[in-house]
Amino acid sequence: MHTAQEPGDTMSESEERAQRLAERTAEAMFERDRASQMLGMRIAEMRPGYARVVMDVRADMVNGLRICHGGLIFSLADSAFAFACNSYNEKTVAAAAQIDFLAPAREGDALTAVARQAWRSGRSGIYEITVTDQNGKPIALFRGRAHRIDGTVTGP
Amino acid sequence: MHTAQEPGDTMSESEERAQRLAERTAEAMFERDRASQMLGMRIAEMRPGYARVVMDVRADMVNGLRICHGGLIFSLADSAFAFACNSYNEKTVAAAAQIDFLAPAREGDALTAVARQAWRSGRSGIYEITVTDQNGKPIALFRGRAHRIDGTVTGP
Amino acid sequence: MHTAQEPGDTMSESEERAQRLAERTAEAMFERDRASQMLGMRIAEMRPGYARVVMDVRADMVNGLRICHGGLIFSLADSAFAFACNSYNEKTVAAAAQIDFLAPAREGDALTAVARQAWRSGRSGIYEITVTDQNGKPIALFRGRAHRIDGTVTGP
Amino acid sequence: MHTAQEPGDTMSESEERAQRLAERTAEAMFERDRASQMLGMRIAEMRPGYARVVMDVRADMVNGLRICHGGLIFSLADSAFAFACNSYNEKTVAAAAQIDFLAPAREGDALTAVARQAWRSGRSGIYEITVTDQNGKPIALFRGRAHRIDGTVTGP
Repeated sequence: MHTAQEPGDTMSESEERAQRLAERTAEAMFERDRASQMLGMRIAEMRPGYARVVMDVRADMVNGLRICHGGLIFSLADSAFAFACNSYNEKTVAAAAQIDFLAPAREGDALTAVARQAWRSGRSGIYEITVTDQNGKPIALFRGRAHRIDGTVTGP
Repeated sequence: MHTAQEPGDTMSESEERAQRLAERTAEAMFERDRASQMLGMRIAEMRPGYARVVMDVRADMVNGLRICHGGLIFSLADSAFAFACNSYNEKTVAAAAQIDFLAPAREGDALTAVARQAWRSGRSGIYEITVTDQNGKPIALFRGRAHRIDGTVTGP
Repeated sequence: MHTAQEPGDTMSESEERAQRLAERTAEAMFERDRASQMLGMRIAEMRPGYARVVMDVRADMVNGLRICHGGLIFSLADSAFAFACNSYNEKTVAAAAQIDFLAPAREGDALTAVARQAWRSGRSGIYEITVTDQNGKPIALFRGRAHRIDGTVTGP
Repeated sequence: MHTAQEPGDTMSESEERAQRLAERTAEAMFERDRASQMLGMRIAEMRPGYARVVMDVRADMVNGLRICHGGLIFSLADSAFAFACNSYNEKTVAAAAQIDFLAPAREGDALTAVARQAWRSGRSGIYEITVTDQNGKPIALFRGRAHRIDGTVTGP
């Protein structure tokens, strides 16, 4: 997993703690996340409130119209959403999500989902996720509503 | 695949043709739909504008919070949506979808998605999909917008 | 305001109490609801978890394309949603909503929104609202997510 | 109506034409848009694919819970959406929209909706609209799907 940290950047101590927490929480989640593993996803980048997750469209991900199953594009976006909204190590679940399918993805495409926190207050949060292919072509736009429940994802 | 036909029911000839077309189209789609097969889905019932699809939550479908990955619940609903909106053998794709997650599903749960056509006009259609578990407990509500493109799913 | 009570129907005492509470709460809300009044809405029927609200498309409700402004169709659906989800006299607000516009409405059309509770658990609820015109033609489908907050709408 | 043109900016000739077309189309739409006028909206800024629209929450815009009616917040966002997606002078209507209500607005609040084009291809487009109050506080997030129909909004 790469981080957003670039050589020369300086982070305050609390930013560094938040960054390490985001990475550590995502690692702990991903280790247990058999669904994302089964679909071949990899976390490419983690920051507080942000996740970038990649997935290749395999031959067994294609639907009856010979394009990537919309549910698996949604799954990629949903995993990025989950890692981003749990990045504070406060257990958070998806309450609802909305997806617009912009263009079909095909076998062999390398998809990237980027999840960004659009708003967060109290127990609620809204995240915007974009899915693009290897050429940067937009494949889907996803918006999710997160609801924080009690407990942490991993140890403190 | 069971049909909605009950002993004693009588269907007009054109209803019978529509019913056979819905079944035949779904079979042809499912045969090519490696994603739905990979996720262990089975079509339980087909009618024109209607589909019932089932899926068991396997150990490899669980996410980092140890509940069924929301993307796979979406995938089940999305497959039911696809079979229902293609049941007239006119090639139709999902343009957008919205899902509300009502309760978590867990490993071993047997999920059922029922897709019903809510509206259809010109090239557009709206379908409502409910996902329930083996006890009839509602797991998710899904609404999809379908867009008909040119061509047929299978031969005439 | 008419009720769902038909001559000859029998309601249990608790059903009657729920029905009276739904009507009384809606009346109290509507009296303060200057927005719904300004738009000429009328509550046509109230039941627990259910509301039917009507609105005529006036000349001042038309947009730049000479059809009823989508926001006012949404407003009608949203008012029906609000009356339905507050019908238990537990203060409830909209967290999110999704609308599909099926056909344009025009000046002089008489619109009806019917809100039905699709699911309710804890502090959350999902409501489905359909908007039709005077000929029963579907104009819009709306789904809202309600969140109960503390307090009551009107006195006990 | 102010434009995005800042002193010192230089626009190419085709950018200037697109900018003038966006302004002229919005003016023509707004002139006929009795609904937006009735709600006291004003277009504050137009660019191709972009609109900023403002509205004050009047006493007659408040609902039964004494907060701004969600339908009127939606209406403001929907007007900004309409001006933005029609800014190329190609007649375009809303097919669907989704809104998340983040915080209540109250009588006297001055709301601003900013609509930005997120994606556009063929006859379809996706627009993201944010609604904030006079303090920059986020009130709602709106995403709309636009569908281009035949014809122009105003003369060439």
